[in-house]
Amino acid sequence: MPKEIKKIGVFTSGGDSPGMNAAIRSVVRTCAYHNKECIGIYQGFEGLMTGEFEVMDARSVKGIINKGGTMLKSARSQEFRSHEGRKKAYENLKKAGIDALVAIGGDGTFTGTMVFSKEFGFPVIGIPGTIDNDIFGTSHTLGFDTAQNTVVEAIDKIRDTASSHNRLFFIEVMGRDVGHIALNVGIAGGAEEILIPEEDLGLDRLVESLNRSRKSGKSSSIVVVAEGDKIGKNIFELKDYVDQNMEGYDVRVSVLGHMQRGGPPSCFDRVLASRMGVKAVESLLEGKSNFMVGLLNNKMELTPLEKAIKGKTTINLELLRVSDIMST
Amino acid sequence: MPKEIKKIGVFTSGGDSPGMNAAIRSVVRTCAYHNKECIGIYQGFEGLMTGEFEVMDARSVKGIINKGGTMLKSARSQEFRSHEGRKKAYENLKKAGIDALVAIGGDGTFTGTMVFSKEFGFPVIGIPGTIDNDIFGTSHTLGFDTAQNTVVEAIDKIRDTASSHNRLFFIEVMGRDVGHIALNVGIAGGAEEILIPEEDLGLDRLVESLNRSRKSGKSSSIVVVAEGDKIGKNIFELKDYVDQNMEGYDVRVSVLGHMQRGGPPSCFDRVLASRMGVKAVESLLEGKSNFMVGLLNNKMELTPLEKAIKGKTTINLELLRVSDIMST
Amino acid sequence: MPKEIKKIGVFTSGGDSPGMNAAIRSVVRTCAYHNKECIGIYQGFEGLMTGEFEVMDARSVKGIINKGGTMLKSARSQEFRSHEGRKKAYENLKKAGIDALVAIGGDGTFTGTMVFSKEFGFPVIGIPGTIDNDIFGTSHTLGFDTAQNTVVEAIDKIRDTASSHNRLFFIEVMGRDVGHIALNVGIAGGAEEILIPEEDLGLDRLVESLNRSRKSGKSSSIVVVAEGDKIGKNIFELKDYVDQNMEGYDVRVSVLGHMQRGGPPSCFDRVLASRMGVKAVESLLEGKSNFMVGLLNNKMELTPLEKAIKGKTTINLELLRVSDIMST
Amino acid sequence: MPKEIKKIGVFTSGGDSPGMNAAIRSVVRTCAYHNKECIGIYQGFEGLMTGEFEVMDARSVKGIINKGGTMLKSARSQEFRSHEGRKKAYENLKKAGIDALVAIGGDGTFTGTMVFSKEFGFPVIGIPGTIDNDIFGTSHTLGFDTAQNTVVEAIDKIRDTASSHNRLFFIEVMGRDVGHIALNVGIAGGAEEILIPEEDLGLDRLVESLNRSRKSGKSSSIVVVAEGDKIGKNIFELKDYVDQNMEGYDVRVSVLGHMQRGGPPSCFDRVLASRMGVKAVESLLEGKSNFMVGLLNNKMELTPLEKAIKGKTTINLELLRVSDIMST
Repeated sequence: MPKEIKKIGVFTSGGDSPGMNAAIRSVVRTCAYHNKECIGIYQGFEGLMTGEFEVMDARSVKGIINKGGTMLKSARSQEFRSHEGRKKAYENLKKAGIDALVAIGGDGTFTGTMVFSKEFGFPVIGIPGTIDNDIFGTSHTLGFDTAQNTVVEAIDKIRDTASSHNRLFFIEVMGRDVGHIALNVGIAGGAEEILIPEEDLGLDRLVESLNRSRKSGKSSSIVVVAEGDKIGKNIFELKDYVDQNMEGYDVRVSVLGHMQRGGPPSCFDRVLASRMGVKAVESLLEGKSNFMVGLLNNKMELTPLEKAIKGKTTINLELLRVSDIMST
Repeated sequence: MPKEIKKIGVFTSGGDSPGMNAAIRSVVRTCAYHNKECIGIYQGFEGLMTGEFEVMDARSVKGIINKGGTMLKSARSQEFRSHEGRKKAYENLKKAGIDALVAIGGDGTFTGTMVFSKEFGFPVIGIPGTIDNDIFGTSHTLGFDTAQNTVVEAIDKIRDTASSHNRLFFIEVMGRDVGHIALNVGIAGGAEEILIPEEDLGLDRLVESLNRSRKSGKSSSIVVVAEGDKIGKNIFELKDYVDQNMEGYDVRVSVLGHMQRGGPPSCFDRVLASRMGVKAVESLLEGKSNFMVGLLNNKMELTPLEKAIKGKTTINLELLRVSDIMST
Repeated sequence: MPKEIKKIGVFTSGGDSPGMNAAIRSVVRTCAYHNKECIGIYQGFEGLMTGEFEVMDARSVKGIINKGGTMLKSARSQEFRSHEGRKKAYENLKKAGIDALVAIGGDGTFTGTMVFSKEFGFPVIGIPGTIDNDIFGTSHTLGFDTAQNTVVEAIDKIRDTASSHNRLFFIEVMGRDVGHIALNVGIAGGAEEILIPEEDLGLDRLVESLNRSRKSGKSSSIVVVAEGDKIGKNIFELKDYVDQNMEGYDVRVSVLGHMQRGGPPSCFDRVLASRMGVKAVESLLEGKSNFMVGLLNNKMELTPLEKAIKGKTTINLELLRVSDIMST
Repeated sequence: MPKEIKKIGVFTSGGDSPGMNAAIRSVVRTCAYHNKECIGIYQGFEGLMTGEFEVMDARSVKGIINKGGTMLKSARSQEFRSHEGRKKAYENLKKAGIDALVAIGGDGTFTGTMVFSKEFGFPVIGIPGTIDNDIFGTSHTLGFDTAQNTVVEAIDKIRDTASSHNRLFFIEVMGRDVGHIALNVGIAGGAEEILIPEEDLGLDRLVESLNRSRKSGKSSSIVVVAEGDKIGKNIFELKDYVDQNMEGYDVRVSVLGHMQRGGPPSCFDRVLASRMGVKAVESLLEGKSNFMVGLLNNKMELTPLEKAIKGKTTINLELLRVSDIMST
């Protein structure tokens, strides 16, 4: 029988995403609701090393539900990668009387957390916080919805100037290994073509697609490119290619960059964060460990951390087809 | 065997919602993709009476994916409620060579469309466009996501002034029969209490909840009220009640009103609209009729219009519980 | 020769406005820059009574430049209106070693502050913080620019639904005594008519204007109404009047309310707040008192508080004419 | 005595800016108000060559006041730079019966327009449309206010992630020759340092400033860099310099790019555009030519085009000082 949990620690790690603060708030208030103590751990794994802990009550998380970023900060820790480092973390937790952890982050966060949990039998639950939506076991990661809206607003602005000047814009959006953001914002932003890591479109088809789009009477075009697209050229090389091989295009590049990670979370991400925080704490209180909470068919479900890390998310092929039809 | 469909009409009816334009665009472009003609019908059912039709090609819907409202306008038609009126509509459609209809709207739109379809054996497919999310057969209606974000941004602004003055705000949001918007924005806006049509909270519990919230150290409070809440008082009577029965509250009311219906659609609503438009047109081309397209488990699915109208959507009880825990 | 100033208190009072936090930040950092101590006084005049003071250094105001509302809160104080109350305030200030005050607020704030200053020879400088832009001695009060953008965004949303349904909307915006917001947002929102306190348009001209607008082919109309317009009817009575006396209008009312006061300040308001805070502190350090800092011809200027209170701002008649021409 | 003006042409040229559409709308409606005909000229100078003209009445400009970009498009024309080309333009105008021109754009637009006007005695008035605010004779160019808000929103988002990770961000904003945007958004975005073309800060001072900021307890920093800053390194070289010469910084770069040019104009820009359009048309009707309309001390004023082009705008030194104090 598992030991009763009286004190829960919470931390964020890896790249931040909108909704992390709302998730922290939910973890803290769910602890308060169940009369458990909650400890905020600063700087991710690094804070486990240094013992940068702080008691949090329901009022500590006032006014953060609508803030981007993470009030608990995030940092990488080389030390935590060694058994010795993790042992230090374990001792810090024990000393502080912390019985269980909620880890908010992505793949890397979950891997570190799982190894730690197995080594020391320490109860942990993960909450998927990343804008990339690349975690198996949840239809939406925290921040994915917000990031998409941020990108679409930027594309709308770029289209204003693109269509005033009859230009072709290559717009780079986040997504090193997955094209979820690119695919959705491409459709929503009315892009003529979308380049994603999951599909090698090939330069020829890109050229053909642009030509077709021009023949159909479009005077300006937008191509959305995921960071990790498979076409084998970076976005500036793409521009050069079109400049050199196609006539009459005025080509520009826009790399949206880090603004995609910030900003007030959308309604969806705030509600999702609130639900995930409740589920994470209550799962720990029920004696569960080494699971990730996720949204599946609009319900809160648990997936073993191991599966969440190893599983692959896949692109919705229907969306690729919708994108093709829309750029008619 | 159904007649081959060569010309498809599309119209919007009932209250407008963000995403309707994106859905029109998708219907038009999917027709173009399949080499079918598309006819825009203006003013909803009224346009069927008056024959306000216009040929639409892929370029006619340029630059509307990010616009709120509906370029085809929406209007009520008394005449369409009579058999005679609907006969006139049928004749107008025949005269124009239109073989099938895509109807974008809510309950009322679907009812009228279904009656018409049955009387004249006319192929129709419905797309659920309403911010209320009160249609059975889809997890999200077009505009629901956008409206939630609009409301949450307004609540964030009101909270700035509420917390500067230690005030209690009652905020009325749309939802005459259903509390979907209220429940989600209440959680996302950090409301202390949420009043919805589906649940009779009772004045006593509201009072108790406000008192508890104050005792817990909160200096300002927000109560989200759906238009159709069951507490038996309108929002101004609620204010008066608190003014008269509770001490030391500085109570204000804000009725968000029609701004909830407008604005550029969110990424989610644009993608949803694009998917629904494709599915609607392709369902007609496959010979289907009297269905509504919907999003179920993140897939496009068909539901008979009759079920869509009669079925009831229900409140997610988990959200009510999350709301309670968050207002700890 | 005035006593050297070593410790400056700052407070906000009256209705809050976006930019107040940025002004507090500027006062605090300008003090730090000049090696003076800065004391935050909570709850406006009320905090002077209760001595709710807090030492603030440059880091205390971190992350507030983009937050609406006021971190120092605002409250009314009956007690401060009496000489005895003000004496208590004076003693609290002396006890805390505070030598001078920066008061951020509107008319009422300045009146109280000036009386206090004269009674006790206490150095004070005012910063005009109100969305109404009704203070003499500055072309812009803090929050005016932000509030206008907030209102215009709301009108844009309402126009989406207005034009989808061919409706007439009366939209009420803040401004009990002055029409600055109404006049500017009316032009920017493309309103057909603007009703302001400074001008008695008369119902007849409103009716005439609406008729002309309809004849010119406009299918939907927006009328912006300042809270304090002189037409002698509130906005719901206006709706009823049109319903009863004009044919074929589908009239709706939207009262924008308190959301106009909140939200992240615009770039303009943040820069203005930063400039005003510097000028306020440096004016005190130069031995000045009983002035308000203001923006005149894009320069920081001082106006005696007495003139700021008694002076009247006037409507730019050119804007009225522009509005007429634009609704052609 | 000048010939009576009956038909006015309007075009946009050079880089587009938010508010250009609102200015076109104002020109068109002011013509309608004075019973003059208005002709829209597409593609800037290029349209003068090709005669791409269109009659515009009050309804032609419906629904564009809140749209970024320019409905009349903008393009460069090599041909217009030759006398022969300009002669062709003159003949096209004469053939179409156009008596006068309103030119909306920046420096380049005004230069071409002025040369043309002098060669053919053709009445012209300029409206300054550019986000850079680099035109003499107006305190604000069209689009400057909007662009600042767009940039500040982006900086707010980047700060979320910067402060979550304790990072240093270099953010590049528009401004090849002038630092107006950089200076204002730097203050409004809470930047630690601002690099502008008008001031050679020098790398040493940048390094010193970053060190001071860190010592003062700041964990994250933002440096705003105008495109044309004088420090002699591009933004990626700046990053490399800090990476190599300063310890313990995690440096990132964000180039905001073309999204700065688009988006719905702010309330300020819409009102300014409306005022400028009225003034431009009425100045032509009064027989004036070769002037630019501008905002000076909140009044519409005329400046000879020649002065507008040759005059230099200067940085407000007060703002530099405010920026220094704020980064205390």
